[in-house]
This record gives sequence, structure tokens and C-alpha cells, in this order.
Amino acid sequence: MKHILLTNDDGIDANGLFALYKELKKLGDVTVVAPHIERSAVGHAITISEPIRVMEFNRSEKFHGYAILGTPADCVKIAVKHIMHKQPDIVVSGVNHGSNTATNVLYSGTVSAATEGIILGIPSIASSLLSFDHKADMSFAAEFTAKVAKMVMEKGLPADTLLNLNIPSGKKNQIMGVEVTRQGKGRYEEQFEQRHDLGGREYYWLSGKKMMLDTEEDIDDVVVMKNKVSITPIHIDLTNHSFISDLKEWNFKI
Amino acid sequence: MKHILLTNDDGIDANGLFALYKELKKLGDVTVVAPHIERSAVGHAITISEPIRVMEFNRSEKFHGYAILGTPADCVKIAVKHIMHKQPDIVVSGVNHGSNTATNVLYSGTVSAATEGIILGIPSIASSLLSFDHKADMSFAAEFTAKVAKMVMEKGLPADTLLNLNIPSGKKNQIMGVEVTRQGKGRYEEQFEQRHDLGGREYYWLSGKKMMLDTEEDIDDVVVMKNKVSITPIHIDLTNHSFISDLKEWNFKI
Repeated sequence: MKHILLTNDDGIDANGLFALYKELKKLGDVTVVAPHIERSAVGHAITISEPIRVMEFNRSEKFHGYAILGTPADCVKIAVKHIMHKQPDIVVSGVNHGSNTATNVLYSGTVSAATEGIILGIPSIASSLLSFDHKADMSFAAEFTAKVAKMVMEKGLPADTLLNLNIPSGKKNQIMGVEVTRQGKGRYEEQFEQRHDLGGREYYWLSGKKMMLDTEEDIDDVVVMKNKVSITPIHIDLTNHSFISDLKEWNFKI
Repeated sequence: MKHILLTNDDGIDANGLFALYKELKKLGDVTVVAPHIERSAVGHAITISEPIRVMEFNRSEKFHGYAILGTPADCVKIAVKHIMHKQPDIVVSGVNHGSNTATNVLYSGTVSAATEGIILGIPSIASSLLSFDHKADMSFAAEFTAKVAKMVMEKGLPADTLLNLNIPSGKKNQIMGVEVTRQGKGRYEEQFEQRHDLGGREYYWLSGKKMMLDTEEDIDDVVVMKNKVSITPIHIDLTNHSFISDLKEWNFKI
């Protein structure tokens, strides 16, 4: 029997998580440990200055899980150390509502949960749908993510490496294929909208428009634009190895 | 005149930031935009579900800055887009109280601020002292960080690459040298301490003990243990390029 840890950053009541739960149940025993409320764009945050709370959560007779007052990374830590009391065979994070391509990978709570999985030595995948519509059809995304989860449990992954899936929305027959990709450079052109609260004090809302900065055919953003699934191997060694020899020539001295 | 953006994750009133401010003033015009309160371990979080506030902050007649209700990444975004209205010549984040080596790089708010700098196309450095003592002597760390900032403004850095400095505590004559390093694999062995609140409900505190998992001489954790400064070039392409050709052979199908 395989043991699967399922989490996300949209919160334990999100449709994407529930759709994926139903598919993963076919592969083994699924433990759901996810944030109590949406924790998008939290990056790889962990909670060290506040207490973490664990609440049992039932969506239906067949869906039992744990809702956490904490971040996606907290969920994975507390699931492994406190709830499951063992290493699961895989951590699956998603299906997220909204893509996690290019620099979004850095901000993503969805990817962060999978990152925490690989830090703990567990093969992990993150999965996102290219639609922010919380009623979007998750059936293909959930089915395909479970298929990849099964492959990962059979084949394993290199140490410190997760798979980041980005899946177009639509029915299975509308999806044009699957490509192994590299992380793109696309980022947001940001704006801060200034408003005033009821006491007249200023505050700001962050907003932004995604900029496509890539054209190469093997880039995540480019592949999903063609209605194909993008699978990017992501690792946690952030060293820019190619710059090391040049940097040594700077001759740093105290 | 050079324009320097200074930030951190310990909060605008931290001694490490103030010590660095005094050194950076010798190099140009310094704008300080930092979190209102400590925001450690927030990873690359940004604030999209709550308003962000900006408050003017004066520590002395000579230290004027902006305290932000938000994360370190928010600080850099709002500084560039709303406060400075231009790209600074460099983003400097620190000096943090506590090291940011190995997997700590992923959790670090200090590194995250510099990451936001390079996403915006600005050369950036992060600097951390190997002491959590908030009264630790920051003089060498601040002086050395400013020296590196000056070099970066002169020489530039490759696109999408920041420098992550980790500096032993102590006087200048106690520091044994400077090494260009790679990010290590050391992580925390975590525990959740269970407590009960006044209403009898359970809550948890996350705690952990850092595990040294590296022995190679050019790893950040190994270098700082020898009382040397570690400088790691960090980039934002998380793709595990070495796994791409193997992954293509998995023959993913819809």
C-alpha cells in the first residue's frame, strides 16, 4: 500500500484538491493536510513566530483531512512529523487554481509544499491548472496529475528534485500534448493601487500584469500557451554554478 | 551619485540594518524600506490578500526610512515602484541576525528581498551574520557588506544572480578569510512542541536543530564553520537542467 500526502495552497476546501483526492485514492492511502484558508503567494514561508493549529476536517463521509492554521510548508512538516509519523511515498501539492510557471515558481505556495517534501527527502510533485476559475473543470488535471504521481512512485526522482506540472484547462481531447520544460523568465509588471481607509489613511493593493519574456520552445510559459502540459524538474540548489569561477577572480579580501 | 535600496527581514529598527546604513551612506544615497516588524522565515512571500501600508520612520536625525506592513519582497517592490520611482543601482538586504546558508536560503526573508531585486533587474546582495544575538557587534559585517556592494556596483552581476554573504561574528582580525561557495544541503531536524492554550485547546510550536550534511570545502556551511566569510552566487532559475534528458525518456502521454 502506497502512502500519499496531499496538500495545496488554496485551502482544504478547494475543488482542485478534492478532484485530485478522488484520483489519488485509486493509488493508495491518502492523507490530506492543507491550509485552513487560502495561502497563495506565500513563497516558502514557515511559521516560527506564531502557534500552529491542527483541526480535523470532513468534506463528506469519504473525505477526511486536517486543516492547518499555517503555510503549505508548515502543512508538509507537521503532516510528516506529527500526523503521519512516517515518510509518505510521495507529496502531491495541488491542483492549484492558476498557473505556476516562470518566476511564479518563486512565489508559489503550491510549489513550496513540494519543495518542503524534497527537503524532507520525499519525492514530490506540484500541479497547477491554467485557470483561476474556482469552478473550472479539474477532471483532466486531476487524472493526469495522479498518472504522474504513479510514475514518480514507480521510478523515483533524483535527490532534491520535484516535478512542477502546469496543465491547461479544458477537456482531455483539447490538450495538445505533454512537454518537459525549463523554468521561464516571465514576471509581473507591478502596480500599487493607492486607496484610503475609512479613517482617511492610505493603503495599497499590489496588482500586476504577467509579462511573457520567453520565446524558446522548451520554456514552461511557451508550452502551456500551446495548450500543452508543461513538466519542469525543479531543484533546491540555487547556486549559480556557471558564475563561480568568474566570481573567484573578484579576489575578495577582508 | 549611486542610489542604494536597503532592506532586511528583521525589521526597520534592527541593529544590523542600522550598522549597514552607516557604511552604505559612504557610497551614495541610501533609501531604507524595511518591514515594520520582524518577518523572518517568510520565504519569497508577497502580500496579495491584504492591504500594504507605508509608514515613515525616523531612528535619529540622520536615519530616515519607510516601515512597511508587508514582507521583505513587498518592501522591494513598493520601494522601486512607489517610493523611489526608479531602479536603484543595487538592493542590499541585511545585515540579518542569524546565518542564511544551505536550505535556510529557501526560507530566508533576507535572501528573498535580494531575489525580488534581481527579478526587477537590479543587482542585489543579501548579508547575514552568524549570530542571533541582537546586540552582536555588526561592525565588520557592515563594513565588509558595503565593500562587496561597492564592487557589485562597479563590476555588475550576471542577470538573475545575487550574492549571498554569510559572515562570522567577531572582530575583523578574528575573520580567517573569504571564500566563494556553493549552497549546502544542511537542513533542520524538526519537532513540534505541543502545548495547550488557556481554553485547553492544543497548539504547536515549530522548533528544530540544524543538521550539518556537508563536508566539501567549498560549501557555505563548511566555510563559515572555519570562521571565514562565505559568498554564494544564487540565481532564480530553479530548473534541474541535468535531469531534463532523463525525464524526457519517461515518455509522458495524455
